[in-house]
Amino acid sequence: MINKDNLIERLIAQNNQKILLLVMDGVGDIPHKDFGKKTPLEYAITSNIDKLARDSVMGRMIPVLPGVTPGSGPGHLGLFGYDPLQYQIGRGMLEALGLSIDIKDGDIAMRCNFASADDNGIITDRRAGRISTDKCEELCSLIGDAIKEIDGVQIIIRPSLQHRFVVVFRGKNLCDMLTDSDPLSEGKEPLEVRALDEKAEFTAKVANQFYQGVRRVIKDLKPANSILMRGFSARPRIPTMMDRFKLNSVCLATYPMYKGLSKLVGMTVIDEAGNNIEELFQKYNDLHNKYDFFFIHVKYTDSNGEDGNFVGKSKIIEEVDKALPILLEKKPNVLCITGDHSTPAAMKSHSWHHIPVMINSDYCGADGAARFTENQCNNGGLGTFESKHLINYLLANAMRLNKYGA
Amino acid sequence: MINKDNLIERLIAQNNQKILLLVMDGVGDIPHKDFGKKTPLEYAITSNIDKLARDSVMGRMIPVLPGVTPGSGPGHLGLFGYDPLQYQIGRGMLEALGLSIDIKDGDIAMRCNFASADDNGIITDRRAGRISTDKCEELCSLIGDAIKEIDGVQIIIRPSLQHRFVVVFRGKNLCDMLTDSDPLSEGKEPLEVRALDEKAEFTAKVANQFYQGVRRVIKDLKPANSILMRGFSARPRIPTMMDRFKLNSVCLATYPMYKGLSKLVGMTVIDEAGNNIEELFQKYNDLHNKYDFFFIHVKYTDSNGEDGNFVGKSKIIEEVDKALPILLEKKPNVLCITGDHSTPAAMKSHSWHHIPVMINSDYCGADGAARFTENQCNNGGLGTFESKHLINYLLANAMRLNKYGA
Repeated sequence: MINKDNLIERLIAQNNQKILLLVMDGVGDIPHKDFGKKTPLEYAITSNIDKLARDSVMGRMIPVLPGVTPGSGPGHLGLFGYDPLQYQIGRGMLEALGLSIDIKDGDIAMRCNFASADDNGIITDRRAGRISTDKCEELCSLIGDAIKEIDGVQIIIRPSLQHRFVVVFRGKNLCDMLTDSDPLSEGKEPLEVRALDEKAEFTAKVANQFYQGVRRVIKDLKPANSILMRGFSARPRIPTMMDRFKLNSVCLATYPMYKGLSKLVGMTVIDEAGNNIEELFQKYNDLHNKYDFFFIHVKYTDSNGEDGNFVGKSKIIEEVDKALPILLEKKPNVLCITGDHSTPAAMKSHSWHHIPVMINSDYCGADGAARFTENQCNNGGLGTFESKHLINYLLANAMRLNKYGA
Repeated sequence: MINKDNLIERLIAQNNQKILLLVMDGVGDIPHKDFGKKTPLEYAITSNIDKLARDSVMGRMIPVLPGVTPGSGPGHLGLFGYDPLQYQIGRGMLEALGLSIDIKDGDIAMRCNFASADDNGIITDRRAGRISTDKCEELCSLIGDAIKEIDGVQIIIRPSLQHRFVVVFRGKNLCDMLTDSDPLSEGKEPLEVRALDEKAEFTAKVANQFYQGVRRVIKDLKPANSILMRGFSARPRIPTMMDRFKLNSVCLATYPMYKGLSKLVGMTVIDEAGNNIEELFQKYNDLHNKYDFFFIHVKYTDSNGEDGNFVGKSKIIEEVDKALPILLEKKPNVLCITGDHSTPAAMKSHSWHHIPVMINSDYCGADGAARFTENQCNNGGLGTFESKHLINYLLANAMRLNKYGA
């Protein structure tokens, strides 16, 4: 029995063909009753994408499992060819990536809240009255100055929004198999962090010392005079896209989390990828010769979806459409347009709905669809498949997969 | 690696949303040459279903594996979210359920035939000339009066149609790993029942004593003076829908087998669910507030298919359509219309053809299909998927699944 899980790796061929994966975050949607029962892809005027659609093959992707709504981590891992059930990114690690912390192997990241406690340390507000982000920055800097190291473990503190911040432990023999200190309700003391495995006992000790240390620094600074720690997580061990697919890959994204996710799979991340969609696309032209695989991430389709802004989401799709000719200047051999999940404007959240996907190449085949929409994708030649298999199609269209068997 | 098999259970959220699964048994079909190459779903006039279809998402389901025709057991287990390859219901157990025997944990059920034997016990007719059902009832009662218990094992006997009956052993230390006594051809004596495992030796002894006991009672009563035993089976150990999906579920069915199947997965079974489709649907209205998940079973689409009665099958679909507004009075949050398998009238049997399925909810998405038919379902947003994943979509549409990953 052939191992299905590494068949693709064993069939890899190398050449100079360029693969461009254009992700409109959360682009998939459902018909909206206030907009003629159309989806944003249907509602948007997209003459450039339409033109490409006629010569493309389409399908719909299941990000994780039927009916399962993915977070951004699993959504993107699937697009990069990594089974999101096999590779998991802990909550603390994802937050750390989102804050541009340069994560090293062996690091343990956690999400923290500033909280309010009474004189006995009992939590009276798990979010410290949602202090301002400015206040959070000030407190993080205070703690960072006071606690730089515990038992040889470097402590990295980074403020996020309002009461939220992230801490990274950097050192030897760290392990993330730890319980949270967050008691999940007020009226209780923060819980002691406990090791779920012998290997994590040292890290638990560091975490508990960190809590005590923080308390010493801020216990008189109401309302934020305590902290809660959650989601301890290590950098997952993920083979790179070079290791697996022999792809020299690059990430063109503006949001830290997507840059961080790309780093996890070994992509080169361009720091200043552009301030708008046109600049982002232009960056591809600039780098065309330097890489094999280009991941271009457009964030605001998702943000508008999350805000319930149907028209806003449609407008971002139109912006992408308008800028598309830039991507076509130095024609990529394979151009894929898709999302990492659906974010229906009517739901204001990520959803389980299958993701529309379109692949264009000289040999992609074509469904004869007039447009790139969810329902056209239902009838596409790629059918409905799990996102983790998208990479197979991209590699195949780039002539980067050898034949299996004689 | 996340265990794919229990991911759904780990993502379950609870709320008050109502899921209604309306199963038209065997509804899927193929075009019939005598009826304008239409299927019964295409041939039937279904204005209410059509109206719902326009705002629904559709797809086609594979009951077990591509090309595999399921029995009613695997067909329904799939719909309830149970992998029919993981959970198997033995033939004897299924027959027992079909005869409304209230099965307990530890029971062993078997299918029996009355047979004709010569003076040496050699079988001369494996079906005893297909004696009447009345005769069968008479014989079962005779045996039941004579043999109530063997070595502490209670013997439950229940007549079925013609020469068929079911026996259940109830007691301690029973095991179903037994060979059949049916020699499968005439001119042979019934085989001794043998244990396939040490644990089953006691049960084999009971089975062989049962055969001897029956012979003593009926050996002079020609033509039915012997018996054959087949399909020894225990109640499968199946976690309930409450355990797995936190669904308080109820079965509205008229046929015993479907009630029995529902009991196996922990559904409450309503004894008098209604004498016709309208009453069945009205029962949902009566119970709307009491349960989360309603399984409504309409039998006669399948029976007509089995009889090759194309028009009859279409008429049942029209009856369902006519009664549909009753189901919509107390709008269920999620309404799914489907079958457990296909039963093409032209084939007069269950078949492997994918099952048409349609899901309606506020956030289902919609394919813009004009009708609910096999070919419209081919273009649906759900694509083609295994029946066992239907529950994922039903839970997702009821907002009963949390997001996976951050």
